[in-house]
Amino acid sequence: MGASPADAGDPTLAADEVESLRRALEEERGRTLRALADFDTLRRRTAREAEAARREGRRAALLPLLPVLDTLERALAAGSRDRDFYEGVAATHRLFLSALREAGAEPVETVGRPFDPNVHEAIATVPANGLEPGVVAREVRRGWHLGGELLRPAQVVVTTAPETTESWR
Amino acid sequence: MGASPADAGDPTLAADEVESLRRALEEERGRTLRALADFDTLRRRTAREAEAARREGRRAALLPLLPVLDTLERALAAGSRDRDFYEGVAATHRLFLSALREAGAEPVETVGRPFDPNVHEAIATVPANGLEPGVVAREVRRGWHLGGELLRPAQVVVTTAPETTESWR
Repeated sequence: MGASPADAGDPTLAADEVESLRRALEEERGRTLRALADFDTLRRRTAREAEAARREGRRAALLPLLPVLDTLERALAAGSRDRDFYEGVAATHRLFLSALREAGAEPVETVGRPFDPNVHEAIATVPANGLEPGVVAREVRRGWHLGGELLRPAQVVVTTAPETTESWR
Repeated sequence: MGASPADAGDPTLAADEVESLRRALEEERGRTLRALADFDTLRRRTAREAEAARREGRRAALLPLLPVLDTLERALAAGSRDRDFYEGVAATHRLFLSALREAGAEPVETVGRPFDPNVHEAIATVPANGLEPGVVAREVRRGWHLGGELLRPAQVVVTTAPETTESWR
């Protein structure tokens, strides 16, 4: 409708409009590039997040099942007079352990290992008695890894350093 | 460096350049809008995919554990002379069921329900004998839902339609 400055034939106004269009185009190109870069970042994040969500799903499913295994192991530890029934339950226990492994869980190594606060929770100490100090002497509750992460720490009994006086004898 | 048509003061050339800059700006705006729309689509997809990945993780973790529960239930069904030990194992079984529910799994309804091929797997039939035909008479293996999806179908025994001759008496 209205004549643009360029149509008016005024060279100064035309140069102004060309200049402002160039700037607008420049800005718009910047916006496109940023939007494309954001898209790319999001795509990379999406792949990472899907993997994290899968792990989170496995974790949420397995965590409540660990106390079930603990209870089963306590029952087995108490023993039974009924050999056949006990054997059936022991078979269930072996199946339970292999199902957890199949689901991606791995037991935390404990007895004989140096105490590692990242995966071990010390709930008691015992004198070293010939063992190295700061070593796991006994496992009270099994710990589990899931993928590269810790699902649940192991509860352990740790050897203490010998009395300093003893090293002076 | 080189003088642009607008600088040259030629109104026709300046008008051409303004026109071509306007077109370029228009196109660039289209590109920006498309990139932003793609970003939005991807963001929505990302949220959906994270949820699917979480479900997939839960599913992968729970599936291998279902046969463990089956074995435990078979052991319990056989019974035991050792009452205390049996009770310990029965407690483990109750804990197992509630852990599965906590992990999001729900048993498939079976006995007395109309046979539903989406969640039931018929492994045998029995005469209706007073029951409706096409109804689940017995559950052989428990089925499980996870979220809104089927984790594992139930294996069931289904009642068959009465002989047609009987309805003629």
